[in-house]
Amino acid sequence: MKPSAAIVHVNRGPLTESIHHGHIAVVNNQGRLLGQLGYAGFLTFARSTAKLLQAIPVIESGAADHYQLSDAEIALLCASHNGEAEHTTAAASILTKLQLNSDHLQCGIHEPWHVPTALRLRAAHSAPTPLHNNCSGKHCGMLTLAAHMNVSHENYLHAAHPVQQQMLNIISEMSGVERAHIKLGIDGCGVPVFGIGIDSLALAYAKLGCPGDLSTKRAAACNRIRRAISKHPHYLAGSDRFDTCLVQVTQGRIIGKMGAEGVFALAAADAGLGIAIKVEDGSERALYPTVVETLLQLDLLSLSELEALSAFHYPLLRNWQGTEVGSIRPQFRLHFV
Amino acid sequence: MKPSAAIVHVNRGPLTESIHHGHIAVVNNQGRLLGQLGYAGFLTFARSTAKLLQAIPVIESGAADHYQLSDAEIALLCASHNGEAEHTTAAASILTKLQLNSDHLQCGIHEPWHVPTALRLRAAHSAPTPLHNNCSGKHCGMLTLAAHMNVSHENYLHAAHPVQQQMLNIISEMSGVERAHIKLGIDGCGVPVFGIGIDSLALAYAKLGCPGDLSTKRAAACNRIRRAISKHPHYLAGSDRFDTCLVQVTQGRIIGKMGAEGVFALAAADAGLGIAIKVEDGSERALYPTVVETLLQLDLLSLSELEALSAFHYPLLRNWQGTEVGSIRPQFRLHFV
Repeated sequence: MKPSAAIVHVNRGPLTESIHHGHIAVVNNQGRLLGQLGYAGFLTFARSTAKLLQAIPVIESGAADHYQLSDAEIALLCASHNGEAEHTTAAASILTKLQLNSDHLQCGIHEPWHVPTALRLRAAHSAPTPLHNNCSGKHCGMLTLAAHMNVSHENYLHAAHPVQQQMLNIISEMSGVERAHIKLGIDGCGVPVFGIGIDSLALAYAKLGCPGDLSTKRAAACNRIRRAISKHPHYLAGSDRFDTCLVQVTQGRIIGKMGAEGVFALAAADAGLGIAIKVEDGSERALYPTVVETLLQLDLLSLSELEALSAFHYPLLRNWQGTEVGSIRPQFRLHFV
Repeated sequence: MKPSAAIVHVNRGPLTESIHHGHIAVVNNQGRLLGQLGYAGFLTFARSTAKLLQAIPVIESGAADHYQLSDAEIALLCASHNGEAEHTTAAASILTKLQLNSDHLQCGIHEPWHVPTALRLRAAHSAPTPLHNNCSGKHCGMLTLAAHMNVSHENYLHAAHPVQQQMLNIISEMSGVERAHIKLGIDGCGVPVFGIGIDSLALAYAKLGCPGDLSTKRAAACNRIRRAISKHPHYLAGSDRFDTCLVQVTQGRIIGKMGAEGVFALAAADAGLGIAIKVEDGSERALYPTVVETLLQLDLLSLSELEALSAFHYPLLRNWQGTEVGSIRPQFRLHFV
């Protein structure tokens, strides 16, 4: 059993009612471990934190330029988006450029995460489409790469498909984990997900933020992705979402991405750091308090930035009558190595 | 830091992606600890597991008989129900017997947990009412007791109200924890919740199941509650809910109740045991696999009962396309003391 650290307390009245455990790794772009909590080598799936890395081959291959993807569309490739009008419009725009349509997306269908959008769809008796799937941007990126590689877009989900082989390559190269050592599972949207240590995920994000040691083409792709997200943070997630707020509040100095099952990865370019976090039980409610607290303990946020993120840092719990009955509080000290 | 044990693995492909920790206490009706995992004294709120205990004063006082509550209505007092038609009808029936109506319920409003019922309400443009709140039965019980005690039903939520004082008394008497040592918080439905060790919660349930050593009146109330739930398990939770299935499958031999934040308590009357479980991070997805596995390890289920509960024991994870991508698996060994 690997060490596991308490990271977040859920408090109600005088008691800590529930406790979340987790793991944190902070590295530089050489992979040197600078800070940790729990077990920095904790092995888990990168889930949607991989999306920023998966956008690299779409750009580096020339596919994004060939199909004239805009910066907003590049940001959408990286998104677990809300399914708001801007998101579905951008996804549809990419597909049009590829002379494809939403029937070619194999991500499956779920209601938009953005509740007002979901309620509007219901009120209009309109069914959600694959465009509303939070992963539709990533799938558009995969279809863009398939078109540019001149390979079939049938079965683009399958691990053996040339596009997915490119995805495995980029995860391997950025994380420093050999292809053969990356564990493969299947994501909620049907594509392969990549099992690596969170220290390796942190390294991939450190390189994404500080790509100076990478090839010129790779560095340019990393810079383009960060610039696109900085210019269009709404396309990374959407209204009221932490990922979008973090980029807006820090004006792109810090770029972070959530993944399902309590994963988060951050590139703090000017500090030269990559950070990865795993809430061990997979809970989202513990994730954003942990991210903000980690940034605070690394001295990466100004007071006004911290203030702007306070609702994510210390969420309040209310009952059905709206009365405050408790709070969620990060409770840990990063170990500096 | 108290010991904490891994109890449930969330598996995807070749990896355990997330891990839940938890605590289990198994006691007899003398409070002797017979089995445990993690820390049997883990202090947390009983949440809705208290409801079966909170029904005791409603019966013992004579209030339930005075207002001629049916067995189905008694079962509803104990429920975190789905808000299905049977549940709201029974709650309304109790209020009518009290010459009150749903405006007197101070539990707040949420959509019915039963999704088809919620969708039907939406389609009919009908707003949910306090009757749909999963706690409406408990609140009806509190109003029944207030009426019988001839005290105001205003402020029946407040800790100082005579009804809530009765609730504190019964929790103290059944759990063996002195009133002054019970931590008080506020529940999602506005009433006080009771913070006690899970070993004390298990004792309360052991006594509920085997009340032979209690006063005649108390024992009769405990027996009536178990009988009412055994006859009307649908009123304890509802369609597709674990609490209801467990009673149905075991024909009332085992009665269990979930609570928010990953709490569960069980009375296994014929085995003379009370069991309490806390998923430390509060997650519901880890709760039912842990309950079934605990009953299995205690040899309390027949093979056919285990088979009937298998979807709760080993839930499968599917992606948006419906493909199986993982599973939730209990992973622990109870320590027998």
